[in-house]
Amino acid sequence: MATAESLKQALEEAIGSAIALSESPHGPGLLAQAYHHAVFPGGARIRPQLTLAVAKACGHDDPELTTAAAVALELLHCASLVHDDLPCFDDAATRRGQPSVHKKFGERIAVLTGDGLIVLAFQVLATVKSKHPERVASVISVIAQATGAPDGIVAGQAWECEPKANLRDYQRAKTGALFAAATACGALTAGAHADSWRPLGEWLGEAYQVADDIRDVVGDPDSLGKPVGQDIAHDRQSSARELGLFGAVQNFELLVGKAIRAIPSCPGAPYLRSLVLSESERLVPREVLERV
Amino acid sequence: MATAESLKQALEEAIGSAIALSESPHGPGLLAQAYHHAVFPGGARIRPQLTLAVAKACGHDDPELTTAAAVALELLHCASLVHDDLPCFDDAATRRGQPSVHKKFGERIAVLTGDGLIVLAFQVLATVKSKHPERVASVISVIAQATGAPDGIVAGQAWECEPKANLRDYQRAKTGALFAAATACGALTAGAHADSWRPLGEWLGEAYQVADDIRDVVGDPDSLGKPVGQDIAHDRQSSARELGLFGAVQNFELLVGKAIRAIPSCPGAPYLRSLVLSESERLVPREVLERV
Repeated sequence: MATAESLKQALEEAIGSAIALSESPHGPGLLAQAYHHAVFPGGARIRPQLTLAVAKACGHDDPELTTAAAVALELLHCASLVHDDLPCFDDAATRRGQPSVHKKFGERIAVLTGDGLIVLAFQVLATVKSKHPERVASVISVIAQATGAPDGIVAGQAWECEPKANLRDYQRAKTGALFAAATACGALTAGAHADSWRPLGEWLGEAYQVADDIRDVVGDPDSLGKPVGQDIAHDRQSSARELGLFGAVQNFELLVGKAIRAIPSCPGAPYLRSLVLSESERLVPREVLERV
Repeated sequence: MATAESLKQALEEAIGSAIALSESPHGPGLLAQAYHHAVFPGGARIRPQLTLAVAKACGHDDPELTTAAAVALELLHCASLVHDDLPCFDDAATRRGQPSVHKKFGERIAVLTGDGLIVLAFQVLATVKSKHPERVASVISVIAQATGAPDGIVAGQAWECEPKANLRDYQRAKTGALFAAATACGALTAGAHADSWRPLGEWLGEAYQVADDIRDVVGDPDSLGKPVGQDIAHDRQSSARELGLFGAVQNFELLVGKAIRAIPSCPGAPYLRSLVLSESERLVPREVLERV
């Protein structure tokens, strides 16, 4: 599996290949700076790490393609954060402990940064030097489905604009889709069967969303690097609001268990199980569980 | 060449495959309506028509792939219009004679519609039933380059946020890139050499941008379906502002001539020449030329 450092390097290369350096007269400099600001420093990079981990468990026979898929998923996630933070959505002033893109570069550059990162994600996949070029179109298709409508993060965000939405439809599209694509692409890029690996991502995505809802209630804005109390402030559905904090925590633990049981049998399964457990501990730390 | 009607049908299919019908409970209904509103009724569909015309001139041996590229280019163009119309950019109330997407559906849905149409463009290409799957990644790559940074429409729009921009860099990225991709993809999807066909698109893109600048000064908002006087209102660079109206019209005619001479020698060349001439007459009608 690529380390956090090599993932960082792959993201740097993707951005460097697509934008001009801000010192160069070739491209618009503000946009170049904003691309970088939107992607670095990263959060936990959980989606691309998941892709890399699943590919490793499946034999990892095409590391270039796996890395390209991991990078694409992270770029799409970063794009969605930039647009979610816009004044018309969350109007968030901070993200990952620094000013949000629109706060630092203005709203116009923020809109364009999100657009450009979406394009870049597909460009990275279309230009990858893969040993298995016949896999590329399927990977792009899986990732596009997880990003667009009616099942992807764009649709998920659009549920927030509907007068009535089913919480599970909303969360599945907004968070689950990209997690499911992360595990599916890990398998697909390594020549394994995508659909067998999708449930792991789906359960993890649900667990992650519930953890996010919990942290929005009991989290500390400094350590999260973003404001809390947003679900109530924006009257958004959330499991903590629907089930209560205790119910949400119970639900989180249930979902982590389902994710662990969804890992297909393979030599890398023990490693993946321990990864899911340590990740769940990071998402909702023990002291939070004890406080509830 | 596909008729306007069959292009319309291909666009309808693309949108229908990716979004849930607004009556269905499966996807968010407002987003589905906004996708449709952003793409229909269309403008002249000049970019996809160009792709289809060049592919025809090059032998048209893979109509499915050509149509997918044409549809992708039009979806990306529509996405850019939706985002350009946003309050933080042009704040345009109308587009193609109807309310702009943000006026009709709100700013949040407009941001998401642009995002989703970008994703859909790549999804259409990744899922095409092509006789030549080995061409697909190159087509996606050419289109992504024309859309992102540093050379595509996203970068072109970002030049508007820079304190100083070169007018040609700006117009080449904002308009020329997608035109050049349109002719390049027409060739590429038909198995011909993309780069030989790129200059035609580049000159046409420049001519189109100059025509747009001219119409922004002398056009009629009712027949254009959008407001005029925008370049001065937003203090944007334009050839009409830089060269004066007479100079801009001279420049337009020069560029159309260059486009015609850039058509590579092939059996379809006479047809393409007459297409460029009739299109240029549509862009800047004779009565406008006479008025200047």
